[in-house]
Amino acid sequence: MNLRPMQDRIIVKRLEEETKTAGGILIPDTAKEKPQQGEVVAVGKGKVTEDGKVLPLDVKVGDKVLFGKYAGTEIKLEGQDYLIMREDDILGVLEK
Amino acid sequence: MNLRPMQDRIIVKRLEEETKTAGGILIPDTAKEKPQQGEVVAVGKGKVTEDGKVLPLDVKVGDKVLFGKYAGTEIKLEGQDYLIMREDDILGVLEK
Amino acid sequence: MNLRPMQDRIIVKRLEEETKTAGGILIPDTAKEKPQQGEVVAVGKGKVTEDGKVLPLDVKVGDKVLFGKYAGTEIKLEGQDYLIMREDDILGVLEK
Amino acid sequence: MNLRPMQDRIIVKRLEEETKTAGGILIPDTAKEKPQQGEVVAVGKGKVTEDGKVLPLDVKVGDKVLFGKYAGTEIKLEGQDYLIMREDDILGVLEK
Amino acid sequence: MNLRPMQDRIIVKRLEEETKTAGGILIPDTAKEKPQQGEVVAVGKGKVTEDGKVLPLDVKVGDKVLFGKYAGTEIKLEGQDYLIMREDDILGVLEK
Amino acid sequence: MNLRPMQDRIIVKRLEEETKTAGGILIPDTAKEKPQQGEVVAVGKGKVTEDGKVLPLDVKVGDKVLFGKYAGTEIKLEGQDYLIMREDDILGVLEK
Amino acid sequence: MNLRPMQDRIIVKRLEEETKTAGGILIPDTAKEKPQQGEVVAVGKGKVTEDGKVLPLDVKVGDKVLFGKYAGTEIKLEGQDYLIMREDDILGVLEK
Repeated sequence: MNLRPMQDRIIVKRLEEETKTAGGILIPDTAKEKPQQGEVVAVGKGKVTEDGKVLPLDVKVGDKVLFGKYAGTEIKLEGQDYLIMREDDILGVLEK
Repeated sequence: MNLRPMQDRIIVKRLEEETKTAGGILIPDTAKEKPQQGEVVAVGKGKVTEDGKVLPLDVKVGDKVLFGKYAGTEIKLEGQDYLIMREDDILGVLEK
Repeated sequence: MNLRPMQDRIIVKRLEEETKTAGGILIPDTAKEKPQQGEVVAVGKGKVTEDGKVLPLDVKVGDKVLFGKYAGTEIKLEGQDYLIMREDDILGVLEK
Repeated sequence: MNLRPMQDRIIVKRLEEETKTAGGILIPDTAKEKPQQGEVVAVGKGKVTEDGKVLPLDVKVGDKVLFGKYAGTEIKLEGQDYLIMREDDILGVLEK
Repeated sequence: MNLRPMQDRIIVKRLEEETKTAGGILIPDTAKEKPQQGEVVAVGKGKVTEDGKVLPLDVKVGDKVLFGKYAGTEIKLEGQDYLIMREDDILGVLEK
Repeated sequence: MNLRPMQDRIIVKRLEEETKTAGGILIPDTAKEKPQQGEVVAVGKGKVTEDGKVLPLDVKVGDKVLFGKYAGTEIKLEGQDYLIMREDDILGVLEK
Repeated sequence: MNLRPMQDRIIVKRLEEETKTAGGILIPDTAKEKPQQGEVVAVGKGKVTEDGKVLPLDVKVGDKVLFGKYAGTEIKLEGQDYLIMREDDILGVLEK
């Protein structure tokens, strides 16, 4: 992954809903507003506070995460689709 | 529960309104805007302040809580429905 | 009262407008936007500041208070109706 | 006056526009958006800052004040009409 | 002038656009959104910061000032029309 | 220029788009939302921070600047048209 | 480039979507909301904090960046089209 997200942004690769993940998340396609699941492939340096301090992010590359249906912006890198979003868009991290 | 909520988010399992809880909360279905009741099953590390301090949450796993009708986002983990919301969505905690 | 309000929230039991309170508040039903009167039955620990300090509330259980017509959320505990609201919704406290 | 306003709120008794006050304020009824005049009858402890400091108010009981047409909420105490508003709604204080 | 403006408010007497002021400001009536000119007749103690410090104002009684077309609230004191506005509504001060 | 802009405001004289400036900025009239170019003729003391510190501005009299199409308010001083705007409305400064 | 962007603004030259960049970013024209790619040609001094500290930017001249479809304002300098935007509009930086 050669795109470095800025500040508190992260890049996520969607995980197809059909496959049953290790954590057992099965998200039927029907639910309109259902959260999405994906894997973190890149993280920014961190959130910059009002007076310039950098707060490292609480997610890391490889984490499986749950995020809101409309979170982030779609981008395509080397033919692969990704989402780029803010850390605050992440609802939770799936523990192995 | 293998989903770790981020920051000041918590995961709540709804308690069916019909059953009369220990605390005696009986919430008839009719009231349109009525608050909901549920049990906390996971809590985040805490709210991150502007300059990076982490403030632990004031609810813990096992607490019975009351929250607004439209609070949180519905998720399904291993076939079970949950709500993931911010601590600030919680109106109150039922003392045993 | 076995519901502990969160942070700067308080629980209030409405006082019927007809009865003339000790403080002599008589609020005719006609005034559309008229404030309401009630008694405080539970208070939260206090407002949490941006950096985590807890500021105790300026109202206590037993206080008779005046609050805006649309303040708070209706809840029912053990068959009794209450309102749960923020301290900032309170206009004033009736001195005995 | 047995109602203690909360924080930075004050209670004001309207002064009838027709009477020409000591300060010579004559506010014809016709002006649609005209500010109102009244006398302060109770003041709160003060504005509470973000970190809990209480800033005493800059108006006191007995002050004659000018305030915006739509400022505050109407209340009735012992048959008398009053307005309860924030200090910031006050435009100015009439010096004797 | 016996009205003391609150905090960062000031009282301004409009200067008629026709008269050509010392500073040579000639503002034809035609321009719809044209700024207005006036003289400061009273100033408040100053702006109160979040933690209670009072910042004195940067305009004083007698200053000729330029302000936005819709700035402030009209008031009448002893038969004379004035505007009461915030210091931040002032665009600039005419140097003698 | 005898008008002292308040705080972080500046006064700018528009440069006609047709003339090709030293910096070679040629902005055809057709572009609807095109930024404007002008020369700074007066600057305020600076931006006042929340606790009263004055931050000097980063533009000075004589600078050629680029600003948004709808930035500022039109004023006329001694027959000459100017714009009065906030420093934050300035996109960039043309180096000689 | 003789235009110095103010504070946290940067100037970007768009890279045509058709050409396949070193980083392999191929952004088909069809995607309506697709992010854009470009090269940084000038950066401001940095973001000014509430109390006047200047925080240097995290992008530099020559960086290839990804930004939102509607980010920035179009300008033309010496016949060449550029975009001027805030650093916060940048989604990520392409590592060589």
